[in-house]
Amino acid sequence: MPRYRLTIEYDGTPFAGWQMQASELSVQGVLEAAAAVINGAPAVIHGAGRTDAGVHALGQVAHVDLARPWDIFELRNALNANVRPLPISVLDVAEVEDDFHARFSATRRHYLYRILNRRSPPALDKGRVWWLPMELDASAMHEAAQFLLGKHDFTTFRAAACQAQSPVKTLDRLDVARHGELIEIRAEARSFLHSQVRSMVGTLKLVGEGKWQANDVKAALDAADRTRCGPVSPADGLFLLRVEY
Amino acid sequence: MPRYRLTIEYDGTPFAGWQMQASELSVQGVLEAAAAVINGAPAVIHGAGRTDAGVHALGQVAHVDLARPWDIFELRNALNANVRPLPISVLDVAEVEDDFHARFSATRRHYLYRILNRRSPPALDKGRVWWLPMELDASAMHEAAQFLLGKHDFTTFRAAACQAQSPVKTLDRLDVARHGELIEIRAEARSFLHSQVRSMVGTLKLVGEGKWQANDVKAALDAADRTRCGPVSPADGLFLLRVEY
Repeated sequence: MPRYRLTIEYDGTPFAGWQMQASELSVQGVLEAAAAVINGAPAVIHGAGRTDAGVHALGQVAHVDLARPWDIFELRNALNANVRPLPISVLDVAEVEDDFHARFSATRRHYLYRILNRRSPPALDKGRVWWLPMELDASAMHEAAQFLLGKHDFTTFRAAACQAQSPVKTLDRLDVARHGELIEIRAEARSFLHSQVRSMVGTLKLVGEGKWQANDVKAALDAADRTRCGPVSPADGLFLLRVEY
Repeated sequence: MPRYRLTIEYDGTPFAGWQMQASELSVQGVLEAAAAVINGAPAVIHGAGRTDAGVHALGQVAHVDLARPWDIFELRNALNANVRPLPISVLDVAEVEDDFHARFSATRRHYLYRILNRRSPPALDKGRVWWLPMELDASAMHEAAQFLLGKHDFTTFRAAACQAQSPVKTLDRLDVARHGELIEIRAEARSFLHSQVRSMVGTLKLVGEGKWQANDVKAALDAADRTRCGPVSPADGLFLLRVEY
């Protein structure tokens, strides 16, 4: 059976998340239904990142095995025709070797978190930013973020529901930068724990508003204690940007 | 009565347009209802640009006369509290002189039109771009657009419903530029006719796909004949960026 790699954009708003769930709308479920129609048989879609409810993707990656070979452009168009009108779009399709696995072959995942930092609520970016009206110090947030880089036990920044065998991960990048009213946080690692980015962002927000200092973030990390995490930030502002192999 | 200038952002999707209409949801109607609540009496909101159904704004400007003086930050917050949960946000409030009129005092209006030019449909930018899957030549569109600059009879690019006394307008800027998959068209003039930007964009699209040459755009303008206009582009991609005074 030929294997295809899919690059996928979606608006997470209407979905209960990437992962298929009984009686809830999921990105994986919609794509599997579309793939089954064109495949003439069930087809399992394996995603690189199991994004939570409301989290968006500009470049999620998945793979699927199909019963017969497809022209890659026809396959992309056929999938897009079958997911309509839901806000999922297959951007690219490539044929890959049998040993390619969207989840296990990934070497780096890139996430973006967007904070709208102004007094007035978002109208056009509603559902695509975390709106925070109090003034945030993005430089202080960036400085504190650097304590989280490297290989650590990230238990503090891990959701209770996390199924990873180990809480030890290596964080390669956590940059915080202001662009006018927008604060962009970029995170890169081979892999992340469940809710890790949102947990780190929620903690850095405490630094941004001056309630915590950079050392408090380091102490929270070192404690390896979930109760030391700041309030987890909402899904609205999180985007899976791309996955490297 | 003190007069206030409001700078307003909105997502045009749920509205029948800026202008108040009987039994339809309008941006002006929602703002007037909010203003009436906080004013304790009816309050008329005059906008700079009467954007059509589905057209967005990042910096619409309006003015309103209120019964009593307000702190500008309190007024902004009170208006925002009363338009919720509709996607309208008052970004800024300033007290202005009695002779300031949002519509008649404006000296320049800035519009942006966004085309998503790729094979796959938009997921995250749905309703905020015109999706065109065929390859467009943005340089050819820009070259043709330059024929429209200056003072002309814009009858060709004017909706039948246009209420302006004269079809003669002066177009100061019409730039077309590609940024990856996105084509941005920026238009500036003291004022525009009804549907003028969308009519010009729809005509330039014919140039982008090679059906028309730049000279055909000039000939259509010179003809001053509405039937010579290309198909009017959809509202989704149009944003009122800002208004100068």
